[in-house]
Amino acid sequence: MLIQALFIFSLLVASTQALDFCVADPSLPVGPAGYSCKNTAEVTVDDFIFSLAAPGNTSNIISAAVTPAFPPTFPGVNGLGISIARLDFAVGGVIPFHTHPGGSEILVVIQGQLCAGFISSLENKVYFKTLVKGDVMVFPRGLLHFQFNSGKSPALAFASFSSPNPGLQVTDYAFFKNDLPTEIVAKTTFLDIPQIKKLKAILGGTN
Amino acid sequence: MLIQALFIFSLLVASTQALDFCVADPSLPVGPAGYSCKNTAEVTVDDFIFSLAAPGNTSNIISAAVTPAFPPTFPGVNGLGISIARLDFAVGGVIPFHTHPGGSEILVVIQGQLCAGFISSLENKVYFKTLVKGDVMVFPRGLLHFQFNSGKSPALAFASFSSPNPGLQVTDYAFFKNDLPTEIVAKTTFLDIPQIKKLKAILGGTN
Amino acid sequence: MLIQALFIFSLLVASTQALDFCVADPSLPVGPAGYSCKNTAEVTVDDFIFSLAAPGNTSNIISAAVTPAFPPTFPGVNGLGISIARLDFAVGGVIPFHTHPGGSEILVVIQGQLCAGFISSLENKVYFKTLVKGDVMVFPRGLLHFQFNSGKSPALAFASFSSPNPGLQVTDYAFFKNDLPTEIVAKTTFLDIPQIKKLKAILGGTN
Amino acid sequence: MLIQALFIFSLLVASTQALDFCVADPSLPVGPAGYSCKNTAEVTVDDFIFSLAAPGNTSNIISAAVTPAFPPTFPGVNGLGISIARLDFAVGGVIPFHTHPGGSEILVVIQGQLCAGFISSLENKVYFKTLVKGDVMVFPRGLLHFQFNSGKSPALAFASFSSPNPGLQVTDYAFFKNDLPTEIVAKTTFLDIPQIKKLKAILGGTN
Amino acid sequence: MLIQALFIFSLLVASTQALDFCVADPSLPVGPAGYSCKNTAEVTVDDFIFSLAAPGNTSNIISAAVTPAFPPTFPGVNGLGISIARLDFAVGGVIPFHTHPGGSEILVVIQGQLCAGFISSLENKVYFKTLVKGDVMVFPRGLLHFQFNSGKSPALAFASFSSPNPGLQVTDYAFFKNDLPTEIVAKTTFLDIPQIKKLKAILGGTN
Amino acid sequence: MLIQALFIFSLLVASTQALDFCVADPSLPVGPAGYSCKNTAEVTVDDFIFSLAAPGNTSNIISAAVTPAFPPTFPGVNGLGISIARLDFAVGGVIPFHTHPGGSEILVVIQGQLCAGFISSLENKVYFKTLVKGDVMVFPRGLLHFQFNSGKSPALAFASFSSPNPGLQVTDYAFFKNDLPTEIVAKTTFLDIPQIKKLKAILGGTN
Repeated sequence: MLIQALFIFSLLVASTQALDFCVADPSLPVGPAGYSCKNTAEVTVDDFIFSLAAPGNTSNIISAAVTPAFPPTFPGVNGLGISIARLDFAVGGVIPFHTHPGGSEILVVIQGQLCAGFISSLENKVYFKTLVKGDVMVFPRGLLHFQFNSGKSPALAFASFSSPNPGLQVTDYAFFKNDLPTEIVAKTTFLDIPQIKKLKAILGGTN
Repeated sequence: MLIQALFIFSLLVASTQALDFCVADPSLPVGPAGYSCKNTAEVTVDDFIFSLAAPGNTSNIISAAVTPAFPPTFPGVNGLGISIARLDFAVGGVIPFHTHPGGSEILVVIQGQLCAGFISSLENKVYFKTLVKGDVMVFPRGLLHFQFNSGKSPALAFASFSSPNPGLQVTDYAFFKNDLPTEIVAKTTFLDIPQIKKLKAILGGTN
Repeated sequence: MLIQALFIFSLLVASTQALDFCVADPSLPVGPAGYSCKNTAEVTVDDFIFSLAAPGNTSNIISAAVTPAFPPTFPGVNGLGISIARLDFAVGGVIPFHTHPGGSEILVVIQGQLCAGFISSLENKVYFKTLVKGDVMVFPRGLLHFQFNSGKSPALAFASFSSPNPGLQVTDYAFFKNDLPTEIVAKTTFLDIPQIKKLKAILGGTN
Repeated sequence: MLIQALFIFSLLVASTQALDFCVADPSLPVGPAGYSCKNTAEVTVDDFIFSLAAPGNTSNIISAAVTPAFPPTFPGVNGLGISIARLDFAVGGVIPFHTHPGGSEILVVIQGQLCAGFISSLENKVYFKTLVKGDVMVFPRGLLHFQFNSGKSPALAFASFSSPNPGLQVTDYAFFKNDLPTEIVAKTTFLDIPQIKKLKAILGGTN
Repeated sequence: MLIQALFIFSLLVASTQALDFCVADPSLPVGPAGYSCKNTAEVTVDDFIFSLAAPGNTSNIISAAVTPAFPPTFPGVNGLGISIARLDFAVGGVIPFHTHPGGSEILVVIQGQLCAGFISSLENKVYFKTLVKGDVMVFPRGLLHFQFNSGKSPALAFASFSSPNPGLQVTDYAFFKNDLPTEIVAKTTFLDIPQIKKLKAILGGTN
Repeated sequence: MLIQALFIFSLLVASTQALDFCVADPSLPVGPAGYSCKNTAEVTVDDFIFSLAAPGNTSNIISAAVTPAFPPTFPGVNGLGISIARLDFAVGGVIPFHTHPGGSEILVVIQGQLCAGFISSLENKVYFKTLVKGDVMVFPRGLLHFQFNSGKSPALAFASFSSPNPGLQVTDYAFFKNDLPTEIVAKTTFLDIPQIKKLKAILGGTN
């Protein structure tokens, strides 16, 4: 007889669309709230799992690597208000000043030593400190922040975000890695022309 | 007899606290959603009105001025999801690259000619154009953007924001107008030390 | 070598869909959060710009005109929590009592003199005042409000909203410019039948 | 040994402030998100319970009564995104056109017959119908709507709202039950002066 | 002449898509904010109305029935932040411990007597009481709660939710009515194996 | 001269209250959006940093420990939409079925092997899998989920949440670790009385 009761309760979830998650289906339209949902019948546990086991390749000029777990690559976080990324730092590695336009970040150091900080919009006050293994630091949404390896060995951290799509805007890239004319960069940054041209050349910017 | 009916309806609004607005009372605690509300009995129409009639003083090196109407100075917008600022540009005036960590901006040009643009976090693509009187431009939340007077006469614009407290983070100020050590600025911006020292000197930064 | 680093960072934005804005594509489905996003590759700066330079035609009985910049006409504001409209008032012009069901409004007077006000839901208290050039007034979300030209020359204002789709419900139109039967209007407004019939006739209502 | 484990888990809820509800304490400041929370140690089950058993007094000109369960009277709903009210209608009873600036409404008819409707902001389209016992109708947030007893016996309904503080703005009260000068009411509603004066007299408005 | 004015105002709502509601169209994609909107031209008043007149069938082991009015079955509530369900209890009927992952619940007793309660996450404190006709109780979002008929006659209640899609997770079903292996259920609930096997058998669980 | 310009820009941030973060001050009132903000002048970098370096004590019956970084203990995350916790598992350790009423969780395995899963509210479908070092899994908000050490060595993980105050409701504790009468537990869980009494005895429940 309980089976009958179950049938009745099942009315509450009779839809073939689960509504307590929305796994991203990148083949469907995207809206302001995120990707459209994959048909629930096709959702598997693997949609909710992502491997960040592999170290990023830090053989580059910043000696650092960011490996994100965002949709659509990690479709399960779509619409859930959270996401994560792996941060690898070789000795001397740095993630230069950047913002996440869409969310706050919380970082936990797994290995090594990092110097991390952010700038408040109130009087440009700087909040920065050296972090060691097990330290957590939060970076409020939208504010400029940085992290670099201040130790003598490689460092590893994980950064979680208060949005599945926090975005990443590296200031240097925004200024120098596109076709914004040099004179406009100069006018809007007060940087000297040779400095701008030097960084545009390194980063592949034009104009 | 209708008077009786009114009495009954009045039960719905029997509180002495209006709940359809929350005029900021800066003498009370602030929370994540904004300032505490002024006692409704003390609210007047002037709490909802603010004058942006006076031009900002553009006799400065950027030849521009921003005059905001934010709480607590403009207490009526607290909690309402919107605010406004007046932007004055002398000839050659510029509002350098900046972000609003807490909201999107919509700008309308009232007088003169502006060049305005923003950088997307996707491939650092630049969206910029010359705006004339009557033109409106929207700047998505958290993204780097700029405006400067590209005409031969003063310019005036109003900028509205999707938050009563959008914040303002001018990149130059964040980098150069505080005590963040020069070597950290260099490490996290790739700028040359002399460039950093020059701008720190101009903007009053130390270390 | 830095170019390699850039490649690594690019992973964060490898999607072909920018996620820091969502330009409306009215050919795709609409959802509760707004229009679906246009393919980022097809987005141009013009999607974020709209001209409100042309005065609205005030040669009408209210001697006023509202020119909105909302999606899909102004696709760039979709999902960004903000929009704007131009308000033109000839001498004697009036925007009758109305509400925006979906957002708060902030108005700035550019030219002329307006009388503007709103009604609180607490004890029906009226907040109204005469506004002059440069004055800003905020109207809390969902509350009845009005603006009219109280000066001797034309007036111009811009109104921004805390939503890309604030909606506009003019009370007179809701009551008299549709097929709601006169006896129901009478019963639900306490207005006299002849008054209702007179306004239905003027506004094109039936029944 | 499990008791030790419990102690460890208890760390997660070590605060003396429950964070899964926020019972209104009207003696503390109010903010944009609602009332401050009562100390959890003083919260009892009665804070979450409210009696709507008593019929409202419908011996009035509208022959109807609204009995709300909103904070601070019903403190338990504060911050929870929901509230409720009891609607009593004598024969001929009517709740005139009104809006809830802060939320949507869902109504269920418990007894009798109601005619209910709302006006869309799109082309002023009317959606109205006769509802009988067991019928549910939803009224989208901020839109003008009404309910009246269209049967031959008393009616009872409950209305729930998508906000603890939805607000209630009765159009007639906003127009006629305050001190907004008659000539401004006329100018902003197109109603005839005698009609306005008649309703101001009935509802207790002045000027 | 007013007709011209109307034309001008109509610009604000010139879209063929009403934006003050979003009736669910289950044939279109679903996103994190809900179902896509039905074409406004095809929306009728019936989309906003749903009948909960019919008692649920309580001839089952729990002697209770839940009849929801959620989208897509009740398409009008999509995106509006509210929904409703009918709860029928025969004598001895019970709705076992459950949560609504997506919203708070407010319940009003129409007939009979219920015992209802919820558990706080702070120190597992229980808030429960006997409710009679006309009593309202609120259950904060996400917390475990229950209702059962504690009287000697059938009971009827309506429950509203602060979301169109609150979800329903009955703890017993989550534990025993699926293929989660018995040893995992035992490990994660501390229940004895025979107890688990007994309930799996009754509820149709496997493994 | 630039110094003058800085003064003008400073108007935008003239408040002594930073508005881009809201460090919790537990001595002030709490509201639905979180704790009141600490005076900005007293905020230091340490408000944004928390150490999760110390392993939790797993010498208990579940052989596991949860160490949260939530406000007010970690005041910097207040209002920022994110928080974090450290999860330690000895061999055989388990975090029993629980929910977070206020947010989604993303977990990253740092060491060892975990079996983790959650139950959907749609047809009680189970999504579970074995996770190894570097694996990330997301648990949608409000759904029942569990983690246990399925390996032969201790395990370590960090869990981030989409809320500063996600809450934690362990089902066993809610059922057995309070004074909810045994007969009510039986009626609302279908568990046998001896099973309930056994677990109440272990967990310290009464009645």
